[in-house]
Amino acid sequence: MSSSTTGKPIECTAAVAYEPNKPLTIEKIFVDPPKSHEVRVKVKYVALCHTDAYTLSGADPEGLFPCVLGHECAGIVESIGPNVTNVKVGDHVILLYTAECGECKLCKSGKTNLCNSVRATQGKGVMPDGTSRFHDKNGKTLYHFMGCSGFSEYTVVADVSLVAIDPQAPLDKVCLLGCGITTGFGAAIKTANVQKGDNVVIFGAGAVGLSVVQGAKLRKAGKIIVVDVNANKKNWATQFGSTDFINPNTDLKKGQTIVDKIVEMTDGGVDYSFDCTGNVKVMRDAFECCHKGWGKCVLIGVAASGQEFSTRPFHFIIGKVCTGCAFGGFHGRSEMGGLIKDYQEGKLKVDEFITHRRSFDEINTAFEDLHTGECLRTVLNYD
Amino acid sequence: MSSSTTGKPIECTAAVAYEPNKPLTIEKIFVDPPKSHEVRVKVKYVALCHTDAYTLSGADPEGLFPCVLGHECAGIVESIGPNVTNVKVGDHVILLYTAECGECKLCKSGKTNLCNSVRATQGKGVMPDGTSRFHDKNGKTLYHFMGCSGFSEYTVVADVSLVAIDPQAPLDKVCLLGCGITTGFGAAIKTANVQKGDNVVIFGAGAVGLSVVQGAKLRKAGKIIVVDVNANKKNWATQFGSTDFINPNTDLKKGQTIVDKIVEMTDGGVDYSFDCTGNVKVMRDAFECCHKGWGKCVLIGVAASGQEFSTRPFHFIIGKVCTGCAFGGFHGRSEMGGLIKDYQEGKLKVDEFITHRRSFDEINTAFEDLHTGECLRTVLNYD
Repeated sequence: MSSSTTGKPIECTAAVAYEPNKPLTIEKIFVDPPKSHEVRVKVKYVALCHTDAYTLSGADPEGLFPCVLGHECAGIVESIGPNVTNVKVGDHVILLYTAECGECKLCKSGKTNLCNSVRATQGKGVMPDGTSRFHDKNGKTLYHFMGCSGFSEYTVVADVSLVAIDPQAPLDKVCLLGCGITTGFGAAIKTANVQKGDNVVIFGAGAVGLSVVQGAKLRKAGKIIVVDVNANKKNWATQFGSTDFINPNTDLKKGQTIVDKIVEMTDGGVDYSFDCTGNVKVMRDAFECCHKGWGKCVLIGVAASGQEFSTRPFHFIIGKVCTGCAFGGFHGRSEMGGLIKDYQEGKLKVDEFITHRRSFDEINTAFEDLHTGECLRTVLNYD
Repeated sequence: MSSSTTGKPIECTAAVAYEPNKPLTIEKIFVDPPKSHEVRVKVKYVALCHTDAYTLSGADPEGLFPCVLGHECAGIVESIGPNVTNVKVGDHVILLYTAECGECKLCKSGKTNLCNSVRATQGKGVMPDGTSRFHDKNGKTLYHFMGCSGFSEYTVVADVSLVAIDPQAPLDKVCLLGCGITTGFGAAIKTANVQKGDNVVIFGAGAVGLSVVQGAKLRKAGKIIVVDVNANKKNWATQFGSTDFINPNTDLKKGQTIVDKIVEMTDGGVDYSFDCTGNVKVMRDAFECCHKGWGKCVLIGVAASGQEFSTRPFHFIIGKVCTGCAFGGFHGRSEMGGLIKDYQEGKLKVDEFITHRRSFDEINTAFEDLHTGECLRTVLNYD
């Protein structure tokens, strides 16, 4: 199969980040055809995630400009380069910032969802051959982002960085499985592997945190405590399955710390805690409120550059565990089908995270949505 | 059974720590009879551990004076208080600073060897009823230490804080199973659960670190790398089963860190790392040199008061794990018998750790031995 655009550059709409901390420029750019082991995708829907905002802010020391951001997206394969066997033209796909090659040491280990295949070049904003497929109208090269670059109507990704999905799945919803929901859900059911009756606490009730909540709820956890400084998150937390909500600014007794409060509520500490804030002070609380002997803290939120996690080593000596995960520990290509099925069977909430919908040209307003605290996810459509 | 001393205070030799950072005073003290659920033990052999030295130094903010230190010891039951059913007069016993009651939340969890039964009072230097069994000749109360107080010829401990062992086992050797050897061995085979071919690194080649080495060796680990700033430790490390030795002061290339070196030697990092130094900077190295995706760091060494472990949270996000253990994760009462058997069958080295033997009245010299770097363990005898 091929289309009229196969093998040629495509001119299309994109939102380019030319400089840190400036609005994106919505303009026509050129997207080169895919090379060997590459796939060009017509992006249909893209959502905004805090990682996009973080890099756009300039705080990410590895952020490269100008670039095409966006990594939580779904679309349809427009054309494939040589040697691509895992998808074909017309396939509905979700792009994966955590690739899965199946052949590197990490993939073969069976112990992690991380993959080394495109890691080095992805971090440099280029395709595996070291070059970009994006150029602006002046011929200026634009960097790729997280191996996805969903803020362009067409994008090119490595074949290991996307997965074909059931064409019956609504792309305007399952695009969210490209990051936040999957990350939180997997942190609960894979990385932590929460079991019936376990007490858990989730710091930060954004899309990731609320998806941890739904994972814990699915596993029939005992107490599911959500901590957020925004009191408005309480209703959402309840909707997704929390049993308790703590606003540290208003719900603590005098002299009581959030750790004290959680330890008191859970007879010594939680079985699992999750940081979904990226704030290193919160990470410390999340770790320290774990039960001695077995409590495990899973860090999910990405800390700002230069920030460090600190704690008294004693907490480790008494058997607490600290770890973390990316993309919820899910293998994007092997396991996305199962997630889609969970969604279709009603086991995994997705629609409920979509608080806003906008057309792609409103993307800068959508970034503002993200910071209001009233938004879980804004889905942008290109049509 | 009873002896002539049953039910009466015993006057015996002890080494009392009257003040921090001063030599111990060797003198006669009085040891009261055991109360309900308590056991009085005639200590036969006691070894010195760095934790004794740490508390004696005054650096331990929870250290209480005057006290009777010592926690790595073995002896014979002299008398038992009411309601003691787990040992009888004449039993050979090892004292346990990590109690095991079998009935608290922690014991029943099946997830940890920590036990809450006597934790609170043990930390306060008293018996579970809140009082001490030790008095000096002036009637001054002396605190207990770590629930053991082996630096007295007779001591009283809670019944959950000792275990009867095979009377054929040589007390002058298996006394060492009361702390260091068990701690390191268990960290390797229980907490980390090292498997065949795993690459491991051990920071600090004292008795604990070398016992991690023997655990890793028993499990047929791949590379067993020992890191120590004392080049003289290399021979010991090799004797206990290490494959590589790094002295960070002399064995690194210019600009190379110890983490770089270990990552290079192990194709990306170790499967398991162990800190046996208590130095928080070393803990950081131990954690950071773990392989991404699965590498686990086990902290064993006790940090000085106020010191904190710090790292970039990114290491957690990419799947590294940090935890720790006390007493190697062993349940003292349930599992000591197995350790004794392992020793008797030649699977667990114990004799090799005894570098010095002294009579009890040389205890202050024995503390000096501990700091020379030429000593793994000094065993003191009361006879």
